[in-house]
Amino acid sequence: VADALRAALAAVVGDAHVLADRELVAGYERDWTGRFGGEARLVVRPASTEEVAGVVRACADAGAAIVPQGGNTGLVGGGVPRGGEVVVSLARLDGLEAVDPLAAQVTAGAGVTLEALQGHARAAGLAFAVDYGARSAATVGGMVATNAGGMHVVRYGTMRAQVVGLEAVLADGSVISRLTGLIKDNAGYDLPSLLVGSEGTLGIVTRARLRLVPRLGERATALFAVEGAEAALELFAELRRHVGSLEAVELMFREGIELVEAEGFGSDPFDVPHPAYVLVECAARTDPMDELAEAVDALDVRDVAVASDSNQRAALWALREGLPEAINQRGVPHKLDVSVPLATLPAFADAVRERVAEGEVVLFGHVGDGNLHVNVLGLDPDDETVDQAVLELVAEHGGSVSAEHGIGIAKARWLSLTRSPEEIAAMHAIKRALDPAGLLNPGVLLAAG
Amino acid sequence: VADALRAALAAVVGDAHVLADRELVAGYERDWTGRFGGEARLVVRPASTEEVAGVVRACADAGAAIVPQGGNTGLVGGGVPRGGEVVVSLARLDGLEAVDPLAAQVTAGAGVTLEALQGHARAAGLAFAVDYGARSAATVGGMVATNAGGMHVVRYGTMRAQVVGLEAVLADGSVISRLTGLIKDNAGYDLPSLLVGSEGTLGIVTRARLRLVPRLGERATALFAVEGAEAALELFAELRRHVGSLEAVELMFREGIELVEAEGFGSDPFDVPHPAYVLVECAARTDPMDELAEAVDALDVRDVAVASDSNQRAALWALREGLPEAINQRGVPHKLDVSVPLATLPAFADAVRERVAEGEVVLFGHVGDGNLHVNVLGLDPDDETVDQAVLELVAEHGGSVSAEHGIGIAKARWLSLTRSPEEIAAMHAIKRALDPAGLLNPGVLLAAG
Repeated sequence: VADALRAALAAVVGDAHVLADRELVAGYERDWTGRFGGEARLVVRPASTEEVAGVVRACADAGAAIVPQGGNTGLVGGGVPRGGEVVVSLARLDGLEAVDPLAAQVTAGAGVTLEALQGHARAAGLAFAVDYGARSAATVGGMVATNAGGMHVVRYGTMRAQVVGLEAVLADGSVISRLTGLIKDNAGYDLPSLLVGSEGTLGIVTRARLRLVPRLGERATALFAVEGAEAALELFAELRRHVGSLEAVELMFREGIELVEAEGFGSDPFDVPHPAYVLVECAARTDPMDELAEAVDALDVRDVAVASDSNQRAALWALREGLPEAINQRGVPHKLDVSVPLATLPAFADAVRERVAEGEVVLFGHVGDGNLHVNVLGLDPDDETVDQAVLELVAEHGGSVSAEHGIGIAKARWLSLTRSPEEIAAMHAIKRALDPAGLLNPGVLLAAG
Repeated sequence: VADALRAALAAVVGDAHVLADRELVAGYERDWTGRFGGEARLVVRPASTEEVAGVVRACADAGAAIVPQGGNTGLVGGGVPRGGEVVVSLARLDGLEAVDPLAAQVTAGAGVTLEALQGHARAAGLAFAVDYGARSAATVGGMVATNAGGMHVVRYGTMRAQVVGLEAVLADGSVISRLTGLIKDNAGYDLPSLLVGSEGTLGIVTRARLRLVPRLGERATALFAVEGAEAALELFAELRRHVGSLEAVELMFREGIELVEAEGFGSDPFDVPHPAYVLVECAARTDPMDELAEAVDALDVRDVAVASDSNQRAALWALREGLPEAINQRGVPHKLDVSVPLATLPAFADAVRERVAEGEVVLFGHVGDGNLHVNVLGLDPDDETVDQAVLELVAEHGGSVSAEHGIGIAKARWLSLTRSPEEIAAMHAIKRALDPAGLLNPGVLLAAG
């Protein structure tokens, strides 16, 4: 039977693109954290939408479960096999069409990396609005499937806000397509919106029509020292009110700054230690420094360091960007990507520190989105007691168990903490409607049921 | 049987809010164009989400079809009965919670009018991003259900982009709710996204959590005279590149200006007639006139009139806002709200004028969205030959048969012109999954099938 499927897949994509060799397959079987993975039945590498459709039909005929895989940068196990699935790698769908300067849009294949997309937009005098650390490997298909977030959401929204249209292969091998770039298109249910964030369980994204934003050449960066999360939120609210060029507002705490310094990734620019730090970046067509400086004068903060050249800007950003790496230097952390309503963020941060009695808590996040990355160091990575405790706190504070990473395998059992039985029933109904045999990424997002 | 349903509904909402009297019911039975409507079995006016859920359960038990109704300002017959349905008016769900200044969000009941929402946001120093002519009557629930657009989409997106979360009653009477205002919430399928634009066929929206935007006090308005649609698009592209404060870009043609002048709604500020007119509005925290003036100097246009006070601004806007009214003075027009890819807009406009041999064509629209309102005057309103011809042209140009008004009853038969059989099959599957008995707004959006 396995050989029949292999032959059927080879007939679609060519023999060279159906991998069964254990060594070749290995690279597709584990995620980069090393936490998730399993044996793949086969790895298939289609090169076009038609080939993806053929692959899905062949798998459907064989009753073989499919795991779609993009850049394999996910953190919740949604893009690697659990054991026995066919991995469909979208890496070869890396076509990037010419930028449409009139619409300020581009059509990109699922396998295009974020970095390639950014460069392509820049070359056309525009920019792509989503950005985050995994840019060299993360791909458009995965970004759509997980509704990727990142640092600029406060200005531009998540991936959802960038998707003008999608092309995707459904579980029956049919292809749906909306790639003409219509901003206003109220003709029927918005299937692209349903697919964004569905983590490969409802369809396989093959191409996306994406909006581009103006390329803003002038930047201003400042690091604010504040009393704590409450003060950070007030700072954010004031900046949003007065500074139209606001692009990123990142929150760190004392423990994070100390960790980054200890691990040599950056250094605190202030003479005395402060409880919390807010890194602010502005971008505009004309120098946003005046606008930022004017706002700063009116703010009541402990201290502020303003970058006046690109070296100083890089030094301030090193504190934030070095933080995940510094954390990893201390062993395998418990990492929980969550969000809470802005008003409850300070109470939530306090509650986490209080509830997690053992282990070292390092919090950071995107303050404007209510998105905190909760890291707990020094505990057994396989004991999920702390994860459970933190996610229960999230639910108590009206938050979401996943802000930007998705549910994947990692959090499927906790979905019910922040989604009601009625919502989960509706999700199951939609899943059954579009994938009655349960072939697409089974076990991801929705636990079997 | 009818009496049993009436009693069941009265038990939910109280006798006074179940209307059967023909005179009282009449106001709910026809749309404001007079084109769509039919007899309602009953009209029910629930006052809370729980009552809506009770109403839906009672109707489900009786197998009675439901037509949800908001402000009844729709243009495609999606909110009025076709004959024999229970009309569920959401007008009494008019609660407006306090603005959350930290999150810059508000929770509004389905029955809140756009005007009330705008005033509420303004009082908190913020603004609601969507605006259009029917603001005094259009309600939040209807705006969500139809993914309302309007004049500011070029800057802020459609209603979809304003919806942070929703509360809705599904066809089985269950209530789903996401009202905590999370910007990043990747925990399962985004049910609110699916409901936006579903025209009451998948659920009844009862409350919405909406983002608010900064209130921008400084405005600049200019009317450009250009050669035609091609030049209008070039103008738009240049303005978007250089003018960050761009908020509305409206396109009119010679025939529209003449009509508005003839009907006394406004007057052309230029000394000589021009083929096309682009009305531009900018808004910012600080006076956007410099930014606009600088861009104007670099532009190659036939002429430009810049408003320097609020009277002049109103005079320029009168040309655009008077246009629909001026059209109505000439009898019942054929009105088609469509969108096409920006690059094909000029060719589409030419093709419409060429294809429509009889009748007088008046085109206007939101040029940045590719959204044209095609009006044909002087033909029999009941003969849909011209509608069919125009919508076929839309399909040929890669556009959508509905830009911002939705499909409703009016265009259900034409959905297949711009949606593929695979897309329509997926829509039917979703509809069957969430409303297996077909109780919610039958015949709207999807033709029976």
